[in-house]
Amino acid sequence: MMNQRIVLASRPTTAPSAENFRLEAVALAPLNDGEVRIRNHFLSLDPYMRGRMNDAKSYAQPQPLNETMIGGTVGEVVESRNAAFAVGDKVVGMGGWQLYCTASGRGDIRKVDTTHIPLSAYLGAVGMPGMTAWYGLNKICEPKAGETLCVDAASGAVGSVVGQLAKLKGCTVIGVAGGKDKCDYVTGELGFDACIDYKAYPEPKDFYGALKAATPKGIDGHFENVGGSILDAVMLRMNAFGRIAMCGMISGYNGAPIPLAAPQLILQSRLKVQGFIVSEHMEHWPAGLTELGTLVATGKLKYRETVAEGLASAPQAFFDLLKGKNFGKQLVKLA
Amino acid sequence: MMNQRIVLASRPTTAPSAENFRLEAVALAPLNDGEVRIRNHFLSLDPYMRGRMNDAKSYAQPQPLNETMIGGTVGEVVESRNAAFAVGDKVVGMGGWQLYCTASGRGDIRKVDTTHIPLSAYLGAVGMPGMTAWYGLNKICEPKAGETLCVDAASGAVGSVVGQLAKLKGCTVIGVAGGKDKCDYVTGELGFDACIDYKAYPEPKDFYGALKAATPKGIDGHFENVGGSILDAVMLRMNAFGRIAMCGMISGYNGAPIPLAAPQLILQSRLKVQGFIVSEHMEHWPAGLTELGTLVATGKLKYRETVAEGLASAPQAFFDLLKGKNFGKQLVKLA
Repeated sequence: MMNQRIVLASRPTTAPSAENFRLEAVALAPLNDGEVRIRNHFLSLDPYMRGRMNDAKSYAQPQPLNETMIGGTVGEVVESRNAAFAVGDKVVGMGGWQLYCTASGRGDIRKVDTTHIPLSAYLGAVGMPGMTAWYGLNKICEPKAGETLCVDAASGAVGSVVGQLAKLKGCTVIGVAGGKDKCDYVTGELGFDACIDYKAYPEPKDFYGALKAATPKGIDGHFENVGGSILDAVMLRMNAFGRIAMCGMISGYNGAPIPLAAPQLILQSRLKVQGFIVSEHMEHWPAGLTELGTLVATGKLKYRETVAEGLASAPQAFFDLLKGKNFGKQLVKLA
Repeated sequence: MMNQRIVLASRPTTAPSAENFRLEAVALAPLNDGEVRIRNHFLSLDPYMRGRMNDAKSYAQPQPLNETMIGGTVGEVVESRNAAFAVGDKVVGMGGWQLYCTASGRGDIRKVDTTHIPLSAYLGAVGMPGMTAWYGLNKICEPKAGETLCVDAASGAVGSVVGQLAKLKGCTVIGVAGGKDKCDYVTGELGFDACIDYKAYPEPKDFYGALKAATPKGIDGHFENVGGSILDAVMLRMNAFGRIAMCGMISGYNGAPIPLAAPQLILQSRLKVQGFIVSEHMEHWPAGLTELGTLVATGKLKYRETVAEGLASAPQAFFDLLKGKNFGKQLVKLA
């Protein structure tokens, strides 16, 4: 049986492009005892993948060249030599950019229940992005009722969950997103109190003015996905003892790091700024996923997906994600 | 009876200079019921005073023009209309840049015991600088035995206490200071494991090379007094889950804020970076001062002082402090 996969062919130095990837057909080896074969239905595309394409020190190993690109997947078991997994079981795992993956069955896949939660949601609001939101918000931003919470990339897979969870906690929630459609969705559908379209304010001081107008009581907690000039403006609005969860800095992923303009504000406003990687806090996943799953199943946590069709569309969908062209969780439908 | 005092005459825009201050002779008003008059013996000069000279939003109110410069003092009660304070009592308080101060006696002065601890130490290792070191180290850096702890301005009133406390906790301690004499003192007298002379490495990459050589296992906790290029280099050496206590950024006090070159390291290395002001954590002072006082009285905590003679010398001593010309705690002897 033949598999199709996308491998990393070369490393980009600025924005990635098509020649950095290569689509291959490879034969699938027979399963060994204990192994499980999965037909991947959806592939998750996430900003962290850009970092893995570099050959640089980071929190994770670089993506090896000429090997299947890393990525979260949901799919269905099609063959099993493991008593814990039956053909037809729906599972989530890190199946990569390919049609089929082979799991060891020893902790690398997890069965999921699609009775009340769509399969794809396990890659979004009830998966890694949702847990990223849950952890950063609850464990670093620590929002209290009545406080003002800010999040950028607010319509995205992580930001949308951050803001909705903060609303449920009684916060005033301000989003930042790119374009009127996204901002309308964030306030109209997701229920944020305001959403600032950063594209409408190309001058940093104008963006700051809009943020100031939207946060008359300042900002107590901020969830950072973007970095750069958005973070600089937010820092100026942070109240004393504010908390900033550093989750992503997508604005700097394709080039030189973007400096932080005014680090002295960390001191002057007595801020806590803390970076985190949700996969290092697995002990919180069972509780977090239960909460997120219940909220999705009962319609209290909304999300949106952008779905690219077919494995071959993954690279372009990924480039678009890095430019913020997606709307909500970016997926690739593989079957 | 006449007092002499130094007031803020104007606000500096870059480095402060003599014309920003004015020495005045003013008559002392008779004491009201409850008040206490103190002859200040020592005035403390501290980097935070530079911030107060600006008319800018910060954690504290700006120093008002034409009023006595703020400052910590130790002295002796010379007149009292308060039963809790007798003539001859030694006290510490915020007496300002002047020979005499008048205390309300309601929480603004505190009696100190000079049997085993010199009076001036209550402005240094057993005072605000010591507590600053104690709080930032214990509550933010949270060093564990075997970890590597870094502190800059290492021979100063705060840095010297940070490093000695960390050594007592079993850390490897690396200091950064300006000049061979200070570095020799930090390793020879204070017992740090190494001290890097930043003046010997004017090129950031050379300073980074020296820091890397001195921290083969990376840095787990950092106590920041300086900011700028030193902080940039330290960030590159921080281990995963490192903690940075932001106490001061003296390198940027006299001009435009100095950006942080690589804020993405907060995310990549999952750092916690937290600013603090020790006066907002008074609940820790009794325990901290007891510990620091015992260490000083028993000779386990060493410190050094630079003493300028006479009130009129305070402005120049302050300018020198901002340039790092002092060695240890900068005091002005008033009597």
